[in-house]
Amino acid sequence: MKIIVGKNLEEMSTIAAQHVLSYMYQDRRVNLAITGGTTPEKMYEILVPQVKNQTCFSNVHYYNFDEIPYKKEDREGVTISDLRRYYLDPANIAEENIHALNQYNYKEQDQRIKNDGGLDMIILGIGADGHYCGNLPGTTSFGDMTTRVECDQRLKDRILPEFNYEEEHVPDYYITMGPKSIMMAKNLVLIASGTKKAEIIQRILQGKVEESIPASILTMHPNLTIILDEEAASLINYK
Amino acid sequence: MKIIVGKNLEEMSTIAAQHVLSYMYQDRRVNLAITGGTTPEKMYEILVPQVKNQTCFSNVHYYNFDEIPYKKEDREGVTISDLRRYYLDPANIAEENIHALNQYNYKEQDQRIKNDGGLDMIILGIGADGHYCGNLPGTTSFGDMTTRVECDQRLKDRILPEFNYEEEHVPDYYITMGPKSIMMAKNLVLIASGTKKAEIIQRILQGKVEESIPASILTMHPNLTIILDEEAASLINYK
Amino acid sequence: MKIIVGKNLEEMSTIAAQHVLSYMYQDRRVNLAITGGTTPEKMYEILVPQVKNQTCFSNVHYYNFDEIPYKKEDREGVTISDLRRYYLDPANIAEENIHALNQYNYKEQDQRIKNDGGLDMIILGIGADGHYCGNLPGTTSFGDMTTRVECDQRLKDRILPEFNYEEEHVPDYYITMGPKSIMMAKNLVLIASGTKKAEIIQRILQGKVEESIPASILTMHPNLTIILDEEAASLINYK
Amino acid sequence: MKIIVGKNLEEMSTIAAQHVLSYMYQDRRVNLAITGGTTPEKMYEILVPQVKNQTCFSNVHYYNFDEIPYKKEDREGVTISDLRRYYLDPANIAEENIHALNQYNYKEQDQRIKNDGGLDMIILGIGADGHYCGNLPGTTSFGDMTTRVECDQRLKDRILPEFNYEEEHVPDYYITMGPKSIMMAKNLVLIASGTKKAEIIQRILQGKVEESIPASILTMHPNLTIILDEEAASLINYK
Repeated sequence: MKIIVGKNLEEMSTIAAQHVLSYMYQDRRVNLAITGGTTPEKMYEILVPQVKNQTCFSNVHYYNFDEIPYKKEDREGVTISDLRRYYLDPANIAEENIHALNQYNYKEQDQRIKNDGGLDMIILGIGADGHYCGNLPGTTSFGDMTTRVECDQRLKDRILPEFNYEEEHVPDYYITMGPKSIMMAKNLVLIASGTKKAEIIQRILQGKVEESIPASILTMHPNLTIILDEEAASLINYK
Repeated sequence: MKIIVGKNLEEMSTIAAQHVLSYMYQDRRVNLAITGGTTPEKMYEILVPQVKNQTCFSNVHYYNFDEIPYKKEDREGVTISDLRRYYLDPANIAEENIHALNQYNYKEQDQRIKNDGGLDMIILGIGADGHYCGNLPGTTSFGDMTTRVECDQRLKDRILPEFNYEEEHVPDYYITMGPKSIMMAKNLVLIASGTKKAEIIQRILQGKVEESIPASILTMHPNLTIILDEEAASLINYK
Repeated sequence: MKIIVGKNLEEMSTIAAQHVLSYMYQDRRVNLAITGGTTPEKMYEILVPQVKNQTCFSNVHYYNFDEIPYKKEDREGVTISDLRRYYLDPANIAEENIHALNQYNYKEQDQRIKNDGGLDMIILGIGADGHYCGNLPGTTSFGDMTTRVECDQRLKDRILPEFNYEEEHVPDYYITMGPKSIMMAKNLVLIASGTKKAEIIQRILQGKVEESIPASILTMHPNLTIILDEEAASLINYK
Repeated sequence: MKIIVGKNLEEMSTIAAQHVLSYMYQDRRVNLAITGGTTPEKMYEILVPQVKNQTCFSNVHYYNFDEIPYKKEDREGVTISDLRRYYLDPANIAEENIHALNQYNYKEQDQRIKNDGGLDMIILGIGADGHYCGNLPGTTSFGDMTTRVECDQRLKDRILPEFNYEEEHVPDYYITMGPKSIMMAKNLVLIASGTKKAEIIQRILQGKVEESIPASILTMHPNLTIILDEEAASLINYK
């Protein structure tokens, strides 16, 4: 495990962008699973001008690792829409390099990734409750591969903000790569920013590995890099 | 994860020996942690004539991943003694390529391995109770690195056979690389033979990942190979 | 560079077979280019029973690196026919895992291999004149990728034995991966046996790197393993 | 081979800096051989603030690949002095991570690098005459490992500017890793900037591989990345 700490969100995002780039420079097909959410927005802002229209990155393929479908409308889900908005569209990534996971193809996701040569890297955020991807406490077990999670009312309330609080869009289930799917990647990069993430970072680094803290399992991966800003790192000793 | 099944113990041991050799052929320092116990005896028998006095393998370094010290006598522990008897001595491995873990240096084991470049491969057996190395049910947690395990009477009874049932030798503690230490290796190879291992193999492949079945965590490693004979594979579908 | 010396052809072939197997054990698509000729016959004999009908090797794909087409008949060329006879057929390799290079597709060979993820390993023989694959002295330059070599009378005389001395079959050209194509592989394994190879082995290890000795360029590859018997190694110092 | 083209020296230097960083992020000992000269000055300017005092890069070790000793004074040579001035000093690299090659230890350089685990990456400039490191046309052969090159008057005239045209400092010989030493690295990165490099870039990509153009051999490496600005790329087709 390697821990890298930038002074602030800006510096953390620069370091994270460099990590993503470092995989893209390989001279062979590269498969990356990238994360939505708010933490990586700055990172994508830094990446876009460096990636846009660069033919030398035509070897890079993108995957999303979870998806929340819209309930009523037949449109792409929340995650891939976010990824398109913040990165894939402004960076002008070719459609053939985008491999969307959704409610129709999730059962083939693990085999598809294996056939494609495996994921070289997954870049992940972490929630204050220890969730990552769609692996929220109480939803998946460590041994799960890509799966469909049924949403009870508690979960529905939780993802409501993703739909601008319009309840009619909130689905009865979502899709996520499970812990075992995630652990099969060759490299994991976990990013976190801000004081509200300091406790969970401390927890996964110093506490027990258990399913109630889903991200605790990530510390068992042989190639994990954790990129933080100083606030998120404020409760750990990293020097 | 890759599962390879040989017809019987002989064929399984041949395949396992080839796996060990496949790491040794690298043209750089190679660090292997190898296992004692009865399962690999045949494997070492196959390896010894191929390795003995071959200068082309001077790049290979050996580590043990657990140790049971003798209580009364100041001699090397049970594990390294087994490894010497079955492999290191007959294969004439140079002493400078042997890195014994013991009760005196176990606190430095994880850092030492890291400084040496990490373990390229650990070859492990599995117990019918799901233990591997010294990670017996109830002794270590998933997040443990190399550690000392105190032996209560139950544990003492259990390791008594290792000392030819001479109670005065049974120690109050033993040393083991913990689950997290093991998971940091680049590659894991798990070997099992015989019908008495069929149930635990089925269990770790199909059941939950939980500390009461220590070896269940191994299935979360991105580079795990399981080598079985047909009896050990009799309850799983591997074709 | 790593040099491994077996006592005789039998031991050399066993070591070579283990090298081939060591690549096959990966848990991902593996691309191997394998060699015809007489040197590897024993190696294939050892490999066949270990590979035949093993579902765990369905990830392994095979390529030939040169081809001599038949002039008059529309049948597969000399190299792939040899590979089928000595290995692919007896090992029962699925047709979809065999990627034949021939006179019709050779212009796409380099791009095809790149798209498939690159060659993990090429196992090569060497001629007493320093040739390897179809790179005979005077036919290709170091910088050549896969190419078609026109045969003058000297070359025709030379490949005549491949056609049982039936001149009407000897073609006006053959196909070969050039030196640069070969050097792009991740790993190279060179095998040689017998006293008649001792001089060329000494030459490529101690002499100049130049096009008149085509195999001299192979010593510039960062991952080259040379597997010899004692006779082929008799003029070098390898201990 | 991968070719990456930045608009100008600034963008090329940014891309090159990211390449260097991408190796440094590994969680294990990393060995880099870095280049002096004028081409990388901007790159080091970009690197320094990102590397300075970052404990997460304490795993990175630095090597120089050539050295011109001072004739009269007993001080460090031209290359390592340049590297210290432009990068090692301002980035505050620990002395124990700096492995200087010089006239006293050059015979051990290749074995030392091998013992250290090999070079992960060499970043190289190229001269308009096709030289790289101290491999000037007519000085070394492709098969040379690290060596001492005697300076005739022509060579002395050539390196005179390195000594501010003070002839009394110009030595009778210099040290360089030879072509074979360089090719043994796991990855090569070649950087070039400006129209005066356009012809040699075209030459090594399209012309013969021959010793009179030393850098032509680099195109035979399986992991070569070429980073150019648009001027240096103006005679090649890279889109």
